[in-house]
Amino acid sequence: ALGDPRALDAWLEHTASPQERSDQLDELSDDDVVALAGALDLPTGLELFDGVEPDVLTRVLVRLPLAQAAGLLDAFDADVTADVLRDMRAEERERLLTAMGRAHSAVVRGLLSWPEDSAAAQMSPNAVTVRPIWVVQDAVRAIRVAAADLQADSHTAAYVYVTSADAQVVGVVTFRALVFAEPGTLVAQIMDEDVVTVDPLEDQEQAAAVLTDHRLLAVPVVDDDGVLLGLLTADDVADILEEETTEDAEKQGGSSPLDVPYLRASPWLLWRKRIVWLLVLFLAEMYTGTVLRHFEDELAQVVALSFFIPLLIGTGGNSGTQITTTLVRAMAVGEVRLRNVLLVLRKEMSTAVLVAASVAALAWVRALTLNVGNEVALTVTVTVAAIVLWSAFVASVLPLVLKRLGLDPAVVSAPMITTVVDGTGLIIYFTVAHLLIGALGG
Amino acid sequence: ALGDPRALDAWLEHTASPQERSDQLDELSDDDVVALAGALDLPTGLELFDGVEPDVLTRVLVRLPLAQAAGLLDAFDADVTADVLRDMRAEERERLLTAMGRAHSAVVRGLLSWPEDSAAAQMSPNAVTVRPIWVVQDAVRAIRVAAADLQADSHTAAYVYVTSADAQVVGVVTFRALVFAEPGTLVAQIMDEDVVTVDPLEDQEQAAAVLTDHRLLAVPVVDDDGVLLGLLTADDVADILEEETTEDAEKQGGSSPLDVPYLRASPWLLWRKRIVWLLVLFLAEMYTGTVLRHFEDELAQVVALSFFIPLLIGTGGNSGTQITTTLVRAMAVGEVRLRNVLLVLRKEMSTAVLVAASVAALAWVRALTLNVGNEVALTVTVTVAAIVLWSAFVASVLPLVLKRLGLDPAVVSAPMITTVVDGTGLIIYFTVAHLLIGALGG
Repeated sequence: ALGDPRALDAWLEHTASPQERSDQLDELSDDDVVALAGALDLPTGLELFDGVEPDVLTRVLVRLPLAQAAGLLDAFDADVTADVLRDMRAEERERLLTAMGRAHSAVVRGLLSWPEDSAAAQMSPNAVTVRPIWVVQDAVRAIRVAAADLQADSHTAAYVYVTSADAQVVGVVTFRALVFAEPGTLVAQIMDEDVVTVDPLEDQEQAAAVLTDHRLLAVPVVDDDGVLLGLLTADDVADILEEETTEDAEKQGGSSPLDVPYLRASPWLLWRKRIVWLLVLFLAEMYTGTVLRHFEDELAQVVALSFFIPLLIGTGGNSGTQITTTLVRAMAVGEVRLRNVLLVLRKEMSTAVLVAASVAALAWVRALTLNVGNEVALTVTVTVAAIVLWSAFVASVLPLVLKRLGLDPAVVSAPMITTVVDGTGLIIYFTVAHLLIGALGG
Repeated sequence: ALGDPRALDAWLEHTASPQERSDQLDELSDDDVVALAGALDLPTGLELFDGVEPDVLTRVLVRLPLAQAAGLLDAFDADVTADVLRDMRAEERERLLTAMGRAHSAVVRGLLSWPEDSAAAQMSPNAVTVRPIWVVQDAVRAIRVAAADLQADSHTAAYVYVTSADAQVVGVVTFRALVFAEPGTLVAQIMDEDVVTVDPLEDQEQAAAVLTDHRLLAVPVVDDDGVLLGLLTADDVADILEEETTEDAEKQGGSSPLDVPYLRASPWLLWRKRIVWLLVLFLAEMYTGTVLRHFEDELAQVVALSFFIPLLIGTGGNSGTQITTTLVRAMAVGEVRLRNVLLVLRKEMSTAVLVAASVAALAWVRALTLNVGNEVALTVTVTVAAIVLWSAFVASVLPLVLKRLGLDPAVVSAPMITTVVDGTGLIIYFTVAHLLIGALGG
């Protein structure tokens, strides 16, 4: 059915949203996507593959006839083509670049020369520029001529940049301003000289933040001399932010970022992304066994102490996780910086005092209902309060320390906080027990 | 120093980025912000407060002289003004609306009449429209006349919508196309009739996804008759997505969304947002104590069993957290839907088999190094594998079940998975122990 043009037309007609189409494509196997692509003419193929994840295209295109693959790549925007080619093996990439149109492949090679996570790697290299000394009428004529060469993503750019004779960016003018202006006005008179720019090597996430912070629809990427290299547009930025947020979420859950859509990830890939952190945490958690064996006599004497182990360390992990997820997100959106460390610590420790008091009250009631005696009940109550405070300290300081060391605070995951609090929480527990329980010499 | 105009000018000069300014404002107390605002003339105040969180403005504006507050609100975009007024007490809101310019306050009252999380509440209500039968030259002239009335956010709109005589949206034309077109062309000839629109009552997050999925810079909000009500623009959408992602992150960490910037949250607010979930989880986790007391005899006979409790339930919680965070994020970005439940389950259970085998091997080595004998070592090894499988099942099904019930899957937090796995994991542990350890009748 996948090769049947009539069924295909009906499906394209029925499924108008590009997102829905690409969702449905994501559920097909690679084989089916290749079969589907083989049955398409170029315009339908373009319409269909617009919005499909680059990594799917990477795998599918190497299996299509060379001319068809090169035809599709030629028709994509240069930044999409570069994304698709970046993850191919070198010889496949070279084969396709050679088969593509010369002008387009030169632009794509330029993009591929930048580091993968840099602003320049994500930019659209084709920008129409005008000169400040032109009148609006001439500028409009020049733009109209240049428009014939523009790639498809031109619909997402809203600005025209004004450059000097040396290609340095000296201003920006909106298409809107061009529409409003009298034809005889100088471009210099309607341009905004205060152009926000980004460096080509700037991290893509930082560059995306520049655009959203200034509420812009595009920012120019310029080199050290101020020369325009390309544009980062709002739709590129939406992709970057979605990708970065997904990576942060995955790190926060204690696994490495998948880098592919979830439904495309094989069990082997999922295993690889998860097992390293899981084994590291397992090794760290093994420490809890050492602590408990150290207190073997106490456990044998007062078996009731073991009843509360999961509750105490679980509550410490939960209260720490609440803090660390809120804090890591606040750092990701730029609300909290390193210099706020004391502010954060004061705020979190004050909150932890309130939380500790609330939880301790409930723990006291719980210990009494388990009929374990006053000494154990008091031990549990004091311990839960101490663990909540300790966990708050660890959870608020750790992300800021990692940031200070130049690491990504998002790796302070819920599992990491839980693991740190488990072992240290047990030491707190038995130390309190020694102090408060007579049978243990307290 | 905050009232000193010279120091203020120096600061404004020095801190050019609106984001940096608003970050620094976020660290001031409300009193200081009011003192600062009192010293500003209107243009400087506007420049300064552009980009400050609406909730800060809400608190500060009610403390400024009425004329100054109304002047600022008049100068903000209508959607920003509505955001600021929405959270005020009714009488404060009414006082300010009455003091504002009549036209602007009428528009703002319109926005305030929509539900807070709807697309319509976030839209910019001032949209320039043209008619399909106009020629480009006349359309440009009409836009130029209308531009005089446009609010400040006009720089973020890139499209002009084409409406019929009944104000129904019949097409869209980019400013870019207007620049490129010959003056005598009909608007109908250069417009795109395939306009993607959103309903006014659509959830703001869904509406934001429509814009990003179609890679647009704005979408029109239209009523049931297709009449244009306003525009949702890319910068509104960036705010909506950032807010929704933050809410999801906070839910995933087991607390209720803060709804205010982190540094503005008092310890009391943090406590309120966290304590409910924490106590619910504490009550659920109390179940572990009941389980352990039930197996009190076993724990007294084989004290070594207790050494592994934190390690076993911790590992179950960690492997479940890995799954649930990845899955919830995939659901949030639309990669995984309800109909994928079997696909997800097959993928996750296959992965869990690989993970269980890896972790069990390490657990066997660990048990031997603690010198607990072969029976306990075998029990620990079998249990960790069983817990990983069970945890994978719970973590992959629970988010989809919640979604099916119409609830937000993001509330399946790391702490919730940990808590569910803790109690059930202990039952698995002691059941396996009974089967495998001779002294317990195995």
